[in-house]
Amino acid sequence: MELYTDAMHGKFAKKVLIVYAHESPASFNAAVKDAAVAALTAQGCTVEVSDLYAMKFKAAATTEDITGGVKDAENFCYAKEIKLASEEGRLADDIKKEQEKLKEADLVIFQFPMYWSSVPAIMKGWMDRVLGFAYAQEKRYSERIFKDKKAMLSFTTDCPESVYSDTGINGDINVTLWPLQNGILNYCGFQVFAPQIFWDPATGSPESRSSMLEGWRTRLQNLCGEAPVYFAPLDYFDKEKGFLLKPEVKEKYASKECGLTVGIHMGKPLPANSQTKAGV
Amino acid sequence: MELYTDAMHGKFAKKVLIVYAHESPASFNAAVKDAAVAALTAQGCTVEVSDLYAMKFKAAATTEDITGGVKDAENFCYAKEIKLASEEGRLADDIKKEQEKLKEADLVIFQFPMYWSSVPAIMKGWMDRVLGFAYAQEKRYSERIFKDKKAMLSFTTDCPESVYSDTGINGDINVTLWPLQNGILNYCGFQVFAPQIFWDPATGSPESRSSMLEGWRTRLQNLCGEAPVYFAPLDYFDKEKGFLLKPEVKEKYASKECGLTVGIHMGKPLPANSQTKAGV
Repeated sequence: MELYTDAMHGKFAKKVLIVYAHESPASFNAAVKDAAVAALTAQGCTVEVSDLYAMKFKAAATTEDITGGVKDAENFCYAKEIKLASEEGRLADDIKKEQEKLKEADLVIFQFPMYWSSVPAIMKGWMDRVLGFAYAQEKRYSERIFKDKKAMLSFTTDCPESVYSDTGINGDINVTLWPLQNGILNYCGFQVFAPQIFWDPATGSPESRSSMLEGWRTRLQNLCGEAPVYFAPLDYFDKEKGFLLKPEVKEKYASKECGLTVGIHMGKPLPANSQTKAGV
Repeated sequence: MELYTDAMHGKFAKKVLIVYAHESPASFNAAVKDAAVAALTAQGCTVEVSDLYAMKFKAAATTEDITGGVKDAENFCYAKEIKLASEEGRLADDIKKEQEKLKEADLVIFQFPMYWSSVPAIMKGWMDRVLGFAYAQEKRYSERIFKDKKAMLSFTTDCPESVYSDTGINGDINVTLWPLQNGILNYCGFQVFAPQIFWDPATGSPESRSSMLEGWRTRLQNLCGEAPVYFAPLDYFDKEKGFLLKPEVKEKYASKECGLTVGIHMGKPLPANSQTKAGV
């Protein structure tokens, strides 16, 4: 956890990109997005919104994402082609535009309603296509170009928190978040702020929704002081041996009650709330 | 586990739907799909393939998916509208067609390259849009209309198995699979066969790829004898109390070393391989 402290003091996001996926301007997701724009702008941040439905953002990762023809059409491998095209400036315009916004951003907020325990397809498309160039074998996790950027998931559910607990029918939300927060955000090198979860706003009263929004505004005011969610540092793993934990790290944690993270659990109980609270 | 036994004896999938997401006919994913078509057809199954890229399948879930206008355009909620539209026969034609195939199928195989620890956006779009009607609060998990159907994820990775172990940098693959297999397939009521994972075929030799395909063909021949992956039965949960485990179930499992499933881990170590092997 000590790895993150120097990056977290005295710095705050001046440029924020909100990647937003809800079709209706009257939705609670829209209200959450608008609240973020207002609160962050009031703090002096520059806020850019990628409104994916309004942009009719193309979700499918296809050969059309590479201009001037792909290198190996027969054995088309998206990740490889997109990496090459990125190096050669041959990505489709819509991807380039999003990458420019991303390059400028100190903080990226993904705002969405949870669909089937994950992001809606249109947002997965943004991740597949815009972050595709970051998917290369040579650099991963904290070596990545995004290592000085922060990212956060902010989403609504249609069920109460109990359903996503470790004795609830959908299972621990920390498990559900792992592939998104580790597999995408941490993999890209982002420091990941704890997710902002709006539990079942549709079922609640207007007052409860107002109160959720108020909590969100308050959090945004103090975001600069937050530590990110903990992930195991890259140097814990042995690249030459299949990216497994180094023996000395395994030994160091052998006597601990819990695993290192949700995914790297070492056969032990998961550390509680490690994907939903900072620095635990 | 006893819940599943009666459905598993003496029955085999006669109609198979393969939902397939790779753009290149020369890809390993295409070879895997073709091998499945051949092996299943040889057994007398009827096999239907939804080739999502070839179909230019629309990924984004939008108001256009509902014909004749949505009920509440201002507060557009996709899940609610799609459920209503489904009941009234007002879904877009491409969704209807996929639902017809789904209705006929005894087994659905999702064939894809893993993108960012999940399915590619175009396949998430199929799940969001085609399975959307199944997303209603009244019935869930084994009460669902798909309860007599089987489903299976079959996918390629671009890293070796070690990377996705519980001491590997990407974390336990069982955690990564939980939102897909529990949050989508089990939620819909499908009995979920253990996933077919092709570890890093691109890096291996042609011989290793042939051997992977041979293993796949062999598995398909014996699929009828396989038990599904274990999920906690619906009656373990108390609907009136936020779908939490019933006290008597908690007590029953209190002395066990491991949690019930990956997500419903009860603060204990995860049961090993519970999302990747049948009946553990």
